[in-house]
This record gives sequence, C-alpha cells and structure tokens, in this order.
Amino acid sequence: MADNREVVIASLPKGPLAASDFEVRTAPIPTPADGQVLCRTIALTIGAGQRAGLQGSASYAGAPVAGRVMGGTGFAVVEDSKADSIPTGSLVVGPTGWLDYSVHDATAVTRVADDAEPATTLGLLGTNGLTGYFGLLDIGRPQAGETVVVSAAAGSVGHIVGQIAKIKGCRVVGVAGSDEKCAMLTGELGFDATVNHRDPDFRNAFKAATPDRIGVYFDNTGGPVLESALFRMRTRGRIVCCGVVSQYDTSTPGPGPRGVPGLLVNNRVRMEGFLIFDYADRFGQARKEMSGWVDAGQLKSKVTEFDGLEQAPQAFVELLNGGTVGTTIVRVSS
Amino acid sequence: MADNREVVIASLPKGPLAASDFEVRTAPIPTPADGQVLCRTIALTIGAGQRAGLQGSASYAGAPVAGRVMGGTGFAVVEDSKADSIPTGSLVVGPTGWLDYSVHDATAVTRVADDAEPATTLGLLGTNGLTGYFGLLDIGRPQAGETVVVSAAAGSVGHIVGQIAKIKGCRVVGVAGSDEKCAMLTGELGFDATVNHRDPDFRNAFKAATPDRIGVYFDNTGGPVLESALFRMRTRGRIVCCGVVSQYDTSTPGPGPRGVPGLLVNNRVRMEGFLIFDYADRFGQARKEMSGWVDAGQLKSKVTEFDGLEQAPQAFVELLNGGTVGTTIVRVSS
Repeated sequence: MADNREVVIASLPKGPLAASDFEVRTAPIPTPADGQVLCRTIALTIGAGQRAGLQGSASYAGAPVAGRVMGGTGFAVVEDSKADSIPTGSLVVGPTGWLDYSVHDATAVTRVADDAEPATTLGLLGTNGLTGYFGLLDIGRPQAGETVVVSAAAGSVGHIVGQIAKIKGCRVVGVAGSDEKCAMLTGELGFDATVNHRDPDFRNAFKAATPDRIGVYFDNTGGPVLESALFRMRTRGRIVCCGVVSQYDTSTPGPGPRGVPGLLVNNRVRMEGFLIFDYADRFGQARKEMSGWVDAGQLKSKVTEFDGLEQAPQAFVELLNGGTVGTTIVRVSS
Repeated sequence: MADNREVVIASLPKGPLAASDFEVRTAPIPTPADGQVLCRTIALTIGAGQRAGLQGSASYAGAPVAGRVMGGTGFAVVEDSKADSIPTGSLVVGPTGWLDYSVHDATAVTRVADDAEPATTLGLLGTNGLTGYFGLLDIGRPQAGETVVVSAAAGSVGHIVGQIAKIKGCRVVGVAGSDEKCAMLTGELGFDATVNHRDPDFRNAFKAATPDRIGVYFDNTGGPVLESALFRMRTRGRIVCCGVVSQYDTSTPGPGPRGVPGLLVNNRVRMEGFLIFDYADRFGQARKEMSGWVDAGQLKSKVTEFDGLEQAPQAFVELLNGGTVGTTIVRVSS
C-alpha cells in the first residue's frame, strides 16, 4: 500500500475560495475494526454546496474547521473488510472525504454493482441526479406544456433538471454563465432556450426567453437570477429552492430578492426548499427510472473530470468559478 | 334622497398616505338600468392592502388614478332594484367604493341576511376573516402543538388567525406594534405570547417567545418581522404570505429578506402566497364553521369604527399607522 494522502483545510476562506486554502499531507493508513471496512478512494465528486459548509453555521452540512480532512462523497473499493455485509473487493459509495484511504462502519457506505462506473454512480445516479429528480418532480411538479427555468443549468444538478423537464413535456429554459455552456445545453441536451446570466442585458433576454412566463423555476443560485425569475412567475408558479451558489463563495452575502413576499402573494407562488436526504427511501425507484431514460437516449450525463487527488482543490475553485460542466469528478486512483 | 357624497383620490401618494390625498365631492345619484340595483352604503371596511393599490402596477388590485372614486367593499341596502334576484330593501355586500350611492349589476353584489350586522359581515365573516381562515388552514396547515406566529396580530386578519390557531391546539405568538395591542391579544383573545415589533430588542424578544421555533408563520407584514421569522422556522415550517403591510405605505420598498432562499433550503421551508378570491366556492362552509366558533365563544371579532364617510381617509391613515385594532369599519349611514 502507498501512503495515505489527505487534503486538509489549511484555513477557512474569508473571500473567494483559493486552492491555497487546502494542503496535502500524508497520514498512516487506518485499520478497520470489527464491522468496519477500509476503503480506497477511486473518485470523488465535488458540489458547489460544499462551499457553504466552509462558511460555518450557515449550512446544513455543519462547520468544518481548519486542520480537518475536507469532507466529500467518494466512490471506493473495499480493500479490507471486517464486515460480513460488504466483502473485500466490493465497490461502494460513501463519505470518504478527500483522501486515499478511509475506514467506515459498513452501514455508513452503500455497496454498488461490481461494474458500476464512478462518474455515473456519483453524478447522474448519485446525489446530483437524485436532487434534480426529486426537486423537479416532487417540489416543482411540472405540467406538460409549462415553461421550466433552471439556473446553473449546465451544472451537476441543472443539466439533469432540464432534461427531465423535457421528458415531462415542458418547454425548458436554461440560465448559465457562458455562451459555450448555453450552446451545449441547446445543442447537446435539447434545451429550448438559454440565457447567459453574464449578458449585460440579462433581464430583457430573460424576459424574451419566457414569453409565457414561468411555471416552475428550479433555483440553484439565488441572487439576481432568482429575483428575475420572481418577476416572471405565472399564477400558481412554483420555485424549487435547491441551492444558493451565487452566495456561497463570499463572506458577505447579498440582500434577499426583491419581490419576496409581495410577488408571492400577487401571483400565488409557492417557494419551497428541500434536502435530498429526505427522499432516501425512494432513491432506488428514482435510479431505476433515470436509468431507463439513459438507456432510451433521453437523459445524458455531463461530467468534468480532474485527474489526481491533489487536483481536488483546483477542481473546487474552478467549479465555483463556473469553469466546469455537469458533475465535477476527481479521479483519485484506478 | 340626499346628495351622493364621493371620496375621490385627489393625488396618488408619493410617500406615507395623508388624508389630504383624498377629497370629498358630490355627484348625482345614479339610476339603475335593467338587471341593476341602486345601493346606499351603510358601512365600509378598509384594509391595509388597499394601500398597495395606490402604488400602481405592483398590486393585484389594479392601479387607481387621481380623480376616481376610491374603491372598497361596502355593506349596503338596495334602495331601488331593477333585478328580480335582489328585491328593494335587501342588504348586500359589494364593491361600493367610498360613496353614498352606487349602481351595480345584481350579479356583482352578494345578498346577506336581513338581520346581518355590518361590522361582522364585513370583518369576521367577510374578506378579512375568510383570509385568515383559508390562509392559516389551507396554506399553513397547522398541527396541534406547533407554534404559530402571526404578524400584524391585532389587525383585521391577524386577530382571527391567532384565535383559529388556538382553536386548532397550537401555541400562538402575536407580533404587534404597541404594548396595548399585545396586552389585548393575550388578555382578551387568548394568545400565548406577544412581541412588540417596535421593541428595540425585538430580535431577542422574538427568539425568546419562540423557544420551540416556528411551525407556521402567517405573514401580514413582510420586512424585518418576516426576516426574523425566517431565522426561527423549524424543519418543514410553512410561511403563509398574506400581505406586505410594512411595504405598502412607501414609494421606496426595502430589500427582500435575508435568508431567502438559503434558509428555505436548509430547513426545507415552504413559503406560499394566496389570494382569498380563489376560495370563493368554499366561503359558505368557512362562514358556517366560523359562526359556530363565535357561538361557542371561541372566536371574537375586534372592530375599530369611524363615524361618517368623510372620516374614511383618516381611518385609512390611522390603519396604516397602526392606530386601529381588528377590522376597520367606517359607518356611512344608518
């Protein structure tokens, strides 16, 4: 076995995250006790929401502290099992964190198929895809023919949301941060229209892209895009509050959106937050349905891969800067 | 018949409303055509939401213009009927506006019982009471044992909401703008606790009054009270967006509340607006249930009455300044 590399939080970021907020150290490879498994990380996924965790108490994820290994979800192989339920050699998904080797109670990881592919397992069929699935269908409840708008549309959750909305017969408008992303959404993923939120004339472009107003707005960003959407909701529209990426990478969050609560009253709009963990007992059914859509060519997974554990901090920075598309994956080992 | 007095909008207010924004003029008494009724106004009700209408397009009520008779809901007697459905002498409720005599299509007014009392008909069993009933029960869905917080708690809607929440077995906290109102809410109406939003230490007092956090926040105000409530919602709490009285009497509305959408996500909170007109087909059932509560001594109606049509502008100003309790009624004639 090699050394156990760990990426630790060197300092909690005060402003925009930098790769230098992390450092790599080595540590002994831990030993599993009875009922535990030793996991070797094959790949990690990074989500923008993890930036909120670095702000401390504002996040549901709890507050990491300097000196700790950065947390995160990994795809791993069990190198040594002391648990009957998960044999050595099994592939699992779990809260590995940003490191090579970690020990977990067998109940804390989920075994996946022996031929499971890391990126799809962590992305489309992982937390990102499930978040899009349940947020759109259970909270947003789109009806065929309605306009569905999604922000951070080229992101890990957004690109799934838009495709599922298309499957459900909706007109889909994506908001993204570059013309390249917008072109990918309409060209590859079948979105009906896109708006670049960096367009100086964003408000008018957004209005032009939503001539029938908005039935469901799936909000991954908060901030100015949310505010624009509030002014375009139709009567009894629904706003799915999924994430606040516009506010994560700062220590001085902006004010709340104008139009709350006045426009919610005038247009009878429902705005609702959710956390994917609440849907755990339905993950299996959702994965089955999404796999069917993949097999039918209706649902595509986009992934941006980084190679090597030491690239994880830079991957995180690029994710927050809008430099990635789809699910962000860091390959740790083969 | 006397002259027909009309209160017209002299000028759309730029800042806080003043009685001088209105003027009284006289006009001919109109004549009903076939299918119409001539109504003599007995009483008017004024709601804070009408101030929003004077801001123009921001309101669901449409934009009044200078020179027009001020709109509003009245309790009236039919002095001359040209419609078979409503005989002369009937009592009706309808969109009379601020005047003595008005003509309406018979279908535009609602006949009430011959012994109906104006204040109860316009308040508890009128739009105010129905708004509290459906907003709390249909949108808020309170569970026995939960904490229900209502802002503008001594107002026309708020004092009904709190009492219905008590009937449903909830712990009820009212937010109001004076110590006298707070004392009335706990002393007369059975609220469990109150907080004066003008208290310099409001945030801490609010926190102390909600030790188990908030299951349902019924928001009549928006602004700082909404923001405080957002930070006190419990998991899966509901915010009923009913009105935005803190923002009505100004031409420069404040920013949206911090915590939207971040806190909605973290605590899986639902925030939903509604308009009472959408529940019209259930008004009868609601009035019956509320009348039962009144008869059982569980639901009391608070009213502030002003005497004389010419007092309507001043009544409106006092309502907006927090100088009234319960439903604001202007007696126009006997």
